[in-house]
Order: sequence, then structure tokens, then C-alpha cells
Amino acid sequence: MKVLVIGATGTVGSAVTEELGKRHQIVTVGGKGGQYQVDMADIAQVRRLFTEAGKSGKFDAVVVTAGVLHFAPLAEFTPEQYRIGLDSKLMGQVNVALVAQEHLNDGGSITLTSGIVSEQPIRGGSSASMVNSALEGFVRGAAIDLRRGLRINVVSPTVLEEALDTYGPFFIGFEPAKGSRVALAYSRSVDGPQTGQTFRVW
Amino acid sequence: MKVLVIGATGTVGSAVTEELGKRHQIVTVGGKGGQYQVDMADIAQVRRLFTEAGKSGKFDAVVVTAGVLHFAPLAEFTPEQYRIGLDSKLMGQVNVALVAQEHLNDGGSITLTSGIVSEQPIRGGSSASMVNSALEGFVRGAAIDLRRGLRINVVSPTVLEEALDTYGPFFIGFEPAKGSRVALAYSRSVDGPQTGQTFRVW
Ligand SMILES: NC(=O)c1ccc[n+]([C@@H]2O[C@H](COP(=O)([O-])OP(=O)(O)OC[C@H]3O[C@@H](n4cnc5c(N)ncnc54)[C@H](OP(=O)(O)O)[C@@H]3O)[C@@H](O)[C@H]2O)c1
Ligand SMILES: NC(=O)c1ccc[n+]([C@@H]2O[C@H](COP(=O)([O-])OP(=O)(O)OC[C@H]3O[C@@H](n4cnc5c(N)ncnc54)[C@H](OP(=O)(O)O)[C@@H]3O)[C@@H](O)[C@H]2O)c1
Repeated sequence: MKVLVIGATGTVGSAVTEELGKRHQIVTVGGKGGQYQVDMADIAQVRRLFTEAGKSGKFDAVVVTAGVLHFAPLAEFTPEQYRIGLDSKLMGQVNVALVAQEHLNDGGSITLTSGIVSEQPIRGGSSASMVNSALEGFVRGAAIDLRRGLRINVVSPTVLEEALDTYGPFFIGFEPAKGSRVALAYSRSVDGPQTGQTFRVW
Repeated sequence: MKVLVIGATGTVGSAVTEELGKRHQIVTVGGKGGQYQVDMADIAQVRRLFTEAGKSGKFDAVVVTAGVLHFAPLAEFTPEQYRIGLDSKLMGQVNVALVAQEHLNDGGSITLTSGIVSEQPIRGGSSASMVNSALEGFVRGAAIDLRRGLRINVVSPTVLEEALDTYGPFFIGFEPAKGSRVALAYSRSVDGPQTGQTFRVW
């Protein structure tokens, strides 16, 4: 299969690229790095990405491992700060799904990324719980609307071992997972038959 | 208790107002009707509402039974159409929670409204599944950040019997519930001790 990985240069994305690369042809996309660049919050850029990167043949799957969230105590959160996650992690990934449904080969798949905080809250994480849950809801809703045998799933990773230097203090007592283990869930979505699922790695 | 009900003039809200009114003093709010008017999508209006309506004494609870969603097949959905639900039903209710945390009496409660489509998708409902799930995630995240003994929950109703004329065709095979039964879940949230919960009525 030919797989587009948006966020391929990141912590989660590099593990996913390594795992999927064992069987599939990967095209890497980043905000600044990768073979192609995109700001997925802008649907026009996502359209351009699929057109450009698809010139040498359409994709069978797209995986997104990107998206920014704001963290703050509820008492300090502003509507504008909730917009950060809604525009980037939520609508960025929704934009990819909207465009992918037109560009993927029949039977292709879309795999998005949420995170454990959707179900297991952390301090200052009301936006993360909101956006990650929104993605899981979107995938349940979108799955039954997709045509041509297209599938859509979302992976909800716990904190990665490779990210503990940055996120460790926010996830005390959470069991971390190796990137290589998290990447298996993306394989289940890309290579497997299911749709509308949240694949938890925790 | 003194309870502010935003959306009190609607199908869900009038049932909730009747049930809560058996024990509590209700102040009703609508977009156009009710004792006070607000566009909850605008946080400045929500602030003004709490200040004005709270002049004769602070509230112990706020309930929201309002919020608009766009429905369309995934193949026709645009990012702008997802914005309708994100601005209205999601951020409108989040705005109320953000303002309420400052204005409610100690130990007060915030009760929001999602809907069965968060878990049980319907055709054209990808925005509804997204927004309703987002609200349930937000409540899980916000509950652990609230101070002064404040609580927050969300009620997820199935389709109301009173709404079947409008929504019936989209919910074939779903078991409807009487408004009076749905209203009990709002009572559990307002009068009960729990926080961070999604109270399903289905
Ligand atoms: N790390 C974890 O432990 C963990 C756990 C659970 C969930 N997650 C979620 O997984 C996602 C990725 O996390 P990560 O830690 O791997 O992040 P990361 O290391 O910062 O990588 C982010 C990736 O996204 C790309 N990117 C940045 N801005 C972009 C944009 N506007 N449009 C498209 N791509 C963009 C980056 O490319 P450039 O570097 O080229 O800009 C990079 O490839 C996030 O949504 C995060 O919430 C992470
Ligand atoms: N009806 C159902 O079967 C059902 C089932 C599950 C979930 N829900 C959810 O429950 C919520 C209420 O549904 P409903 O059927 O009761 O709706 P509805 O009958 O249309 O009532 C909506 C209420 O919200 C008020 N409102 C409108 N715009 C507003 C704004 N910008 N800011 C604040 N308040 C505003 C309306 O006031 P005015 O009339 O004065 O403008 C009215 O009181 C919706 O989010 C819906 O998704 C409904």
C-alpha cells in the first residue's frame, strides 16, 4: 500500500513510519520537515498536499500524528485558548478526513490520533479531554457516512516512553508505552478491516 | 436552590424546568424568550447574564439545554459547517461553564447537554457525534479542575417523544424517552453528589 503520514517527523509519527514502512510505501509529511509540508488547519493546503503528493499514484491510506493542544487550569482558560486545539488537533485532522474521502483509493483508510486524556483526565487538560473525545466521536459518526469501502479509525495512545522527558511530569502514575507498541495500533487500523473504532494503547 | 436554566423555553428545557421547579427556584433563559436572553456563543453576553440575573442573589446551579448542530452527509460537509456546532453547542456550553465557575455559590453545579449521537451515530451526524463527545470529554476534564466544591456533569438524552415530529425520521428504531424522564437525569446532576459524569438517558 501507499501511505501518507502527516506528522511523520514527530515522536509518534516516526514510530508509526518505521512500523508501517516494513510493509508499505510511506510518504512523509511535516509542518516544516518531511517530503511534503502542510498546515493541516488550512483545508486548502490539505487539498494541495493530496493533489501534489498523489501525482505519482493515489494513496491507500492516510495517517495523522499531528495536532497541538493548549493546557491551562480551567480557572484561567479562555475561549481563544480552546480554539487552539479545536483549530489544530481537531479541525486539522477533520480537514484531512474530508479531503482524503475524495482522494484515497477504494477501500482505503484514514487513521487519526487522539490520546488517553480523552478518558483519563489530567490537571489543566480540559481542552485535551474535549478535543480527544471530539475526535473519537467524529470517527464514530464519519465511519457510517464514508463511501467506496473507505474506513476511518482513531488511535488513543498513552504517553510514549520517548516523550517522558517532555510530558512525564503531567503523567505521574500513568503507564507509558514504547513508540513501537503504539505504532502497532496504527497498523491494525491501516492493515485491518475495522472502522469507526478507537484503538486504545493503554 | 436557585437554578439558572439556559434553553428553558425549548423542548428539553421546558421539561427540565418543570421537574427542577418542583424543588427549586428557577430563572429561565432563552435566545429570544425566557426571563433573560443570551447568545451563549458570545462569552461577553454570558458574563452579562450571570451578573444581571445574579443581582438578587447568586445561583447554586446552572443547566444548559441549548445548542445548534449542522447535519449533512460527510461527502458534503465543509469546515465552516462543523464550526456551527463547535461555536454554538460546544463553545456556547463551555462559555457557560467558564463563567459559572466564578459566579456560582460554593458547592454549586453545572449541567450541560450532549445527546445519544455521541455514541450511537446517525447518517449525516458526524458533527453531532463530534460535538456531543467533545462535551462529554470536556466535562471529564473540567470536573477535576473545578474549585470550591463545584461540580459539572452532562446529560446525554435519546430523542424525546415530544420531538418526534421533527427528529423522528432520523431516529428510526431508537427508543424515544418522555421529556419528564429525561428531566430526571438533570435532577440527578443538580441535586446529587456526582461530578465529571455523563448521565445517559438511553
Ligand atoms: N507524544 C506522546 O506521548 C503522545 C501521547 C498521546 C497522544 N499524542 C498526540 O499525538 C500527536 C503527535 O504528538 P507528538 O508528540 O508525536 O508530536 P511532535 O513530536 O511535536 O510531532 C508533531 C508532528 O506534527 C507535524 N506538524 C506540526 N504542525 C503541523 C501542522 N500545522 N500541520 C501538519 N503537521 C504538523 C510536525 O512536523 P514538523 O516537526 O516538521 O513541524 C511533526 O511531524 C499530538 O496530537 C499529541 O497530542 C502524543
Ligand atoms: N429534542 C431532543 O430530542 C434532543 C435529544 C437529545 C439532545 N438534544 C439536545 O438538547 C438541546 C436542546 O434541544 P431542544 O430540542 O430542546 O431545542 P429547542 O426546542 O430548539 O430549544 C432550544 C432552546 O435554546 C434556546 N437558545 C437558542 N439559541 C440560543 C443561544 N444562542 N444561546 C442560548 N440559548 C439559545 C432557545 O431559546 P429561544 O427559543 O428563546 O430562542 C430554546 O430555549 C440541543 O443541543 C439538542 O441537540 C435534544
